Amino acid sequence: MATSLFGRDILDVQSISDEEVRLIMDTAARYERAMDNGGRLLNMSGRTLATLFYEPSTRTRLSFEVAMLRLGGTVISVADGQVSSSAKKGETLYDTGKMMESYADVTVIRHPVTGSAAELAAGSSKPVINGGDGAGQHPTQALLDLYTIIKEQGKVEGLTICLAGDLKNGRTVHSGAALLARMGVNFIFTAPDALAMPDKITKDLIAAGIKVDVIPDLDEAVAKSDVLYMTRIQQERFDDPAEYERLKTSFEVTNDTVKKAKKNMTIMHPLPRVTEIKVEVDDYKGAAYFRQAANGVPVRMALLSLVTGCE
Amino acid sequence: MATSLFGRDILDVQSISDEEVRLIMDTAARYERAMDNGGRLLNMSGRTLATLFYEPSTRTRLSFEVAMLRLGGTVISVADGQVSSSAKKGETLYDTGKMMESYADVTVIRHPVTGSAAELAAGSSKPVINGGDGAGQHPTQALLDLYTIIKEQGKVEGLTICLAGDLKNGRTVHSGAALLARMGVNFIFTAPDALAMPDKITKDLIAAGIKVDVIPDLDEAVAKSDVLYMTRIQQERFDDPAEYERLKTSFEVTNDTVKKAKKNMTIMHPLPRVTEIKVEVDDYKGAAYFRQAANGVPVRMALLSLVTGCE
Amino acid sequence: MATSLFGRDILDVQSISDEEVRLIMDTAARYERAMDNGGRLLNMSGRTLATLFYEPSTRTRLSFEVAMLRLGGTVISVADGQVSSSAKKGETLYDTGKMMESYADVTVIRHPVTGSAAELAAGSSKPVINGGDGAGQHPTQALLDLYTIIKEQGKVEGLTICLAGDLKNGRTVHSGAALLARMGVNFIFTAPDALAMPDKITKDLIAAGIKVDVIPDLDEAVAKSDVLYMTRIQQERFDDPAEYERLKTSFEVTNDTVKKAKKNMTIMHPLPRVTEIKVEVDDYKGAAYFRQAANGVPVRMALLSLVTGCE
Repeated sequence: MATSLFGRDILDVQSISDEEVRLIMDTAARYERAMDNGGRLLNMSGRTLATLFYEPSTRTRLSFEVAMLRLGGTVISVADGQVSSSAKKGETLYDTGKMMESYADVTVIRHPVTGSAAELAAGSSKPVINGGDGAGQHPTQALLDLYTIIKEQGKVEGLTICLAGDLKNGRTVHSGAALLARMGVNFIFTAPDALAMPDKITKDLIAAGIKVDVIPDLDEAVAKSDVLYMTRIQQERFDDPAEYERLKTSFEVTNDTVKKAKKNMTIMHPLPRVTEIKVEVDDYKGAAYFRQAANGVPVRMALLSLVTGCE
Repeated sequence: MATSLFGRDILDVQSISDEEVRLIMDTAARYERAMDNGGRLLNMSGRTLATLFYEPSTRTRLSFEVAMLRLGGTVISVADGQVSSSAKKGETLYDTGKMMESYADVTVIRHPVTGSAAELAAGSSKPVINGGDGAGQHPTQALLDLYTIIKEQGKVEGLTICLAGDLKNGRTVHSGAALLARMGVNFIFTAPDALAMPDKITKDLIAAGIKVDVIPDLDEAVAKSDVLYMTRIQQERFDDPAEYERLKTSFEVTNDTVKKAKKNMTIMHPLPRVTEIKVEVDDYKGAAYFRQAANGVPVRMALLSLVTGCE
Repeated sequence: MATSLFGRDILDVQSISDEEVRLIMDTAARYERAMDNGGRLLNMSGRTLATLFYEPSTRTRLSFEVAMLRLGGTVISVADGQVSSSAKKGETLYDTGKMMESYADVTVIRHPVTGSAAELAAGSSKPVINGGDGAGQHPTQALLDLYTIIKEQGKVEGLTICLAGDLKNGRTVHSGAALLARMGVNFIFTAPDALAMPDKITKDLIAAGIKVDVIPDLDEAVAKSDVLYMTRIQQERFDDPAEYERLKTSFEVTNDTVKKAKKNMTIMHPLPRVTEIKVEVDDYKGAAYFRQAANGVPVRMALLSLVTGCE
């Protein structure tokens, strides 16, 4: 039987099989070619996407909405769930899921609390896609990151990928590491002590036979990396502002960093960036973070159409 | 001449004739069948709905927007009028109505102040639909409730309908009671003393020849009811938190409540619910509240298309 | 070579040539006729507009969105940028521009800080339209105002135009004056001393050979004006509430004002109005402010389609 994601929720990367990951990558690539050729896609004509965002995220919300519109579908949206939704009246996400199944063919939820996407999915007979829930998962980011690596580097297996910045709190790096580990990469973890990758994740990766090096120095790390995946270090994670200022500077990618890097290194970032990648780096050929953001559209087109059977 | 709602504002249930109510019910049923058959409707292709929400209401807003999209139309929206609209600059709703008539073919307004929908309608030469204004009216909820009762019970005339919970403050039950009264139902009112149906409404109903029983005990009431219409008891209505806790518990629908109910009783709720209907009740065959929410779509499709002459 | 705005940002009125202004006026008039004839336009089918509003503006945002929808295009929106966007995380508008170029064919931005539209445009390879930035420019308002004057008066050259109210803080009057000056009008400036037109603007106009009369009295001014362009006097501009109350009254247009006006005077206002034009004036034949708001749609249709090459 052919692989299919029809009717499926996309809640985490663990529940997507390798074969399904390939299907998503292939479908996204097909949509990207179709758009490059200027074709109009109408796969989701007559279908409706609901975006429920209980936490601000311009990039994730807009890229899902654009993905739906480019497939000929329509969108309904709660852009600021905290302020304007029934959540204020105490409705459970289970009940919200029951409502959404009447209104939309597929729902994307972003929520500050881990497990929220699963709760919504429990209520809804229609597919739910997790657009990021708390410190939990952000599976569509992990998939578009994988898509970007394959596009930029031509492959993923055997690459050395440096995850740098805040590895403790980032759902993006946690989801991403879990997915990339299955693709046969080697990891370098580059973070301040206070923001190191949680021990459990590191140990699980090593137990699974993944090569993991912990290299706190960014310059040393980039010399060995095919992909540098930067994340933002947030001031609010630090009790001591001076400590934040000190660390921030040692985790900034500049033209000097790039000079020390391995040839053809790809630089990625989930965005928004603040100061962790200097604007001067944007001109570097391997600076892929804006292309990465753009890749969110075909990957999300693939997901929306696959779970609704419209691919 | 055939009944028509073309060009009409939908501000309250009183100004909709019985014949017009039938037209709305029939049109909604026709759309529901068309959607069940998988047909694409394009009745409102090229038309635009504006949703102006000066008070949060996910369910009402999204169901109107979905209704418009399913008819092939487009939507513009002010989802959080308090925060982001010209209202902050002191514009009257009359002037806002003048603006909306240039932008949209039909406008839905939700507002915390009674009479707001009428003020907007006074400014607009295009139809305005009241999506709930203050303690005033919520006519589209009343219409979808009627549609639900007819679908669930096969008829409405002669049924005994128990309105339970907060009967004092709920615009839903006030609009609903006014419409149902005309359909030949009998009422049971079940509420804590502090939240009883306003005397004027009860007296007017009795004066109009409607049978009204006031039965404060929920178990006793359900034994005699064909339809139980629950509403939420809001903590903020009570000065004494202990009083709220006590009453809340005696107005909760549980599996025990259902066991004491009349056979085939339909349970409705405008949603969102908090604790007034336990999740365990969701599996009861007559638990119609989620179907009721879904019925909002065809009923609102009927209203949008009828007032614009696109039915 | 024919005049074209293809690929252009619309950041201010200064960078639009007279020939380009005529192209915008002609294109808007063509769309208005097409809509009056009931035709469906599909010029922007398959294209997407992004509206990024970091400051509330119902009228500007909705009229752009309606313009896009009437051309057959689709819309993605950040209606309340302060609350719900990546701006909270410290992203620059340059980076936001990089994001938008992947998602939309054209972006409209409203922002409280002067220069924001240019910053977004620097990041985006796709056209950006300034929907008002701080005390800076509001070029699409200036263009729709010009369109309105031509429609109402049959011409613009040689007309005497009275700008009245708050001439100090209004970006609308500053953009508008700059554009109208090039069209050969004469100005009357009518404002309280505290809210007078900035000296630099007045001197520049006079240096450019424009006739400018400063007439503080509204009745005296309207007797000589073909167009009265009122703006709102905002209470927050005054330290002394009593001063505000006094001035507010002397800058109110009433039926008495209209009696003293030149024959066929056109009254305009960017809206929203509060008390500066009494509702009684709405019935005056030359009261054009609601028609002016409606003209925003064809003018914005012209801009959206011209910059994307879809006209």
